[in-house]
Amino acid sequence: MTISRVWRRPTLGAVAARAGVSTATVSNALNGTGRLSEATRQRVLAAARELGHAPASTARALARGGTGVLGLTTTTYGDLPVSYIEIPYYAQLTLSAMAAAHERGYMLMVMPSSLSPWTWLNTPMDGVIHVEPRADDPVCSLLRERGIPMVSEGRPSQPCWDDAWVDTDHEAGMRLLLDHLAESGARRIALSQPLHDDAYPILIGRAYASWCAERGMPALVEEYAALPDYFTSERDAVGRLLARDPRPDAVIGVYSDSGHNILAAARHHGIRVPQDLLVACISEDPDYATTTPPVTTLSLRPDRVGAEVVDLLIAVINARSGVERRRLVQPVLLPRRSTRRAARRRNGTPTSTP
Amino acid sequence: MTISRVWRRPTLGAVAARAGVSTATVSNALNGTGRLSEATRQRVLAAARELGHAPASTARALARGGTGVLGLTTTTYGDLPVSYIEIPYYAQLTLSAMAAAHERGYMLMVMPSSLSPWTWLNTPMDGVIHVEPRADDPVCSLLRERGIPMVSEGRPSQPCWDDAWVDTDHEAGMRLLLDHLAESGARRIALSQPLHDDAYPILIGRAYASWCAERGMPALVEEYAALPDYFTSERDAVGRLLARDPRPDAVIGVYSDSGHNILAAARHHGIRVPQDLLVACISEDPDYATTTPPVTTLSLRPDRVGAEVVDLLIAVINARSGVERRRLVQPVLLPRRSTRRAARRRNGTPTSTP
Repeated sequence: MTISRVWRRPTLGAVAARAGVSTATVSNALNGTGRLSEATRQRVLAAARELGHAPASTARALARGGTGVLGLTTTTYGDLPVSYIEIPYYAQLTLSAMAAAHERGYMLMVMPSSLSPWTWLNTPMDGVIHVEPRADDPVCSLLRERGIPMVSEGRPSQPCWDDAWVDTDHEAGMRLLLDHLAESGARRIALSQPLHDDAYPILIGRAYASWCAERGMPALVEEYAALPDYFTSERDAVGRLLARDPRPDAVIGVYSDSGHNILAAARHHGIRVPQDLLVACISEDPDYATTTPPVTTLSLRPDRVGAEVVDLLIAVINARSGVERRRLVQPVLLPRRSTRRAARRRNGTPTSTP
Repeated sequence: MTISRVWRRPTLGAVAARAGVSTATVSNALNGTGRLSEATRQRVLAAARELGHAPASTARALARGGTGVLGLTTTTYGDLPVSYIEIPYYAQLTLSAMAAAHERGYMLMVMPSSLSPWTWLNTPMDGVIHVEPRADDPVCSLLRERGIPMVSEGRPSQPCWDDAWVDTDHEAGMRLLLDHLAESGARRIALSQPLHDDAYPILIGRAYASWCAERGMPALVEEYAALPDYFTSERDAVGRLLARDPRPDAVIGVYSDSGHNILAAARHHGIRVPQDLLVACISEDPDYATTTPPVTTLSLRPDRVGAEVVDLLIAVINARSGVERRRLVQPVLLPRRSTRRAARRRNGTPTSTP
């Protein structure tokens, strides 16, 4: 019960022919060396992927005195009992970073946030992807002290001249979502806002406020404690929003489970979604396709972010110049029934489309 | 915009009180040392999880001369351009192994299969999880040569006295699935069988053959080449099954996309599912909930397998005696419309339940 192996690793020449470049350019693109335009590099990587080219090994990195290991860690929640791998955003981010690292011949070491300072300073690795560093993040300081190449997923809270990061374009994302709600007829759009000291909720809050100011719409914000458990605290915050007079006609949540929390709060107050209230949240959770009603979500594209952050880290490790060190990924809106205004039938009975 | 950190790492004493054991037992359970029953160890780990206890660091492992790193690799597809992380089974397995490793204070290093022998022999790590080793797997031989603790996910094709592995109970799984099809009225159940030299398809084939023999039902098997692309080859194999006279009344597929392939083949031959043919496959793909019709799947529980394989590897690293080195995880059947015989209405029109 065996099977013959017909597939052969494609040569650099095959990749070069596919991408329409020289083999030296292919080699530069795969190794992150030389001076190439982003467009050329992306074209070569795409050709290599299509042909199934995988680097033979991390031998090259090792020959340079490297380890062939990229580290990835999430310290956002510190020692809190948050299993971030169960959050769809982090799961997708980690898996796509893994695939991207393997494609370039690197191992990906995923590290718990609770390692000792000794371990952060001494574990052999060529560079680290730091997922959503907090303000005054101790791991950040340790890694800087070590002088190891570091790229953050999410903008650092405290900007520094040599930052290298990949983030979603939150400005563009909030504009997509708010414009969509306004087109669906919302005029009093509220934000259910978590308090946490990574950059993400702060950027969302700013984008929301500037959109409201631009459009001359009221900014309706209720804040809640994100830790240790935002289920109850967010439901209470949404309850306070729904008790306002006049009431908001739409609520946006910014965490993965916010849609569930807002639906629960609306049910508790006897408010119908979407007839009396539009609901949307920023989440990668596929469950929103089957909630009652299905909830409109904004995807931050963790798959793209994971691939870009690995690409940038390898460029930084190889001290490649002329590389964009601050990269934005474009988010995508997934409109569902929770933001569709009920259409009125001729006889005046409200109905809703699926 | 800061938030006070109210959560504190629970002490061993708190975990001990919760689990109803001594602090020494908690320490043994978390470190994989001492002689404990599996039940006690699981109870302590559950209590630790509930309280959010995370080991302070890998300092202990490092103090023993270890690295605090567990490796994980999948060599099933060798150098083939199969992005196994996109297959839901491997994605879930990897994420749950990651969570289990972090919970025990270990880093998880995910390694591409295409590393050089030098790298397999020299990368610092305390042990390796080898996912579905193939017959004559070269990585397996290298790791044995290195003498590094190794646990395989999936039974090795060539058993050895000191094997340590975690696998799903494929015998029990096939019985669940076949009994379900028989209860739904199937009498000629066919198997669409991939050819590949890891143990999995072989075990499935055996379990199927022995169930058929036991029940006195015909064994209807069509084999297809699993590599490099099983979409076309499986559709052709199912086509050959559907061309048989008499025709099978049910088809089982064993790979993640088999359900899609079987549905496509049935459509191509103008055969209705489930009215004329029942369809089921072994898969973790959530998309089967929304295919036309939704397809019954057998879940191999990669989440449980990932947690068990990390637990076993840590036990092997710590040379803990009295540990079950061959562990079976129980699969779960998710019945959906593709295996529900159409009920007949009083007037004779066939109808089907959702």
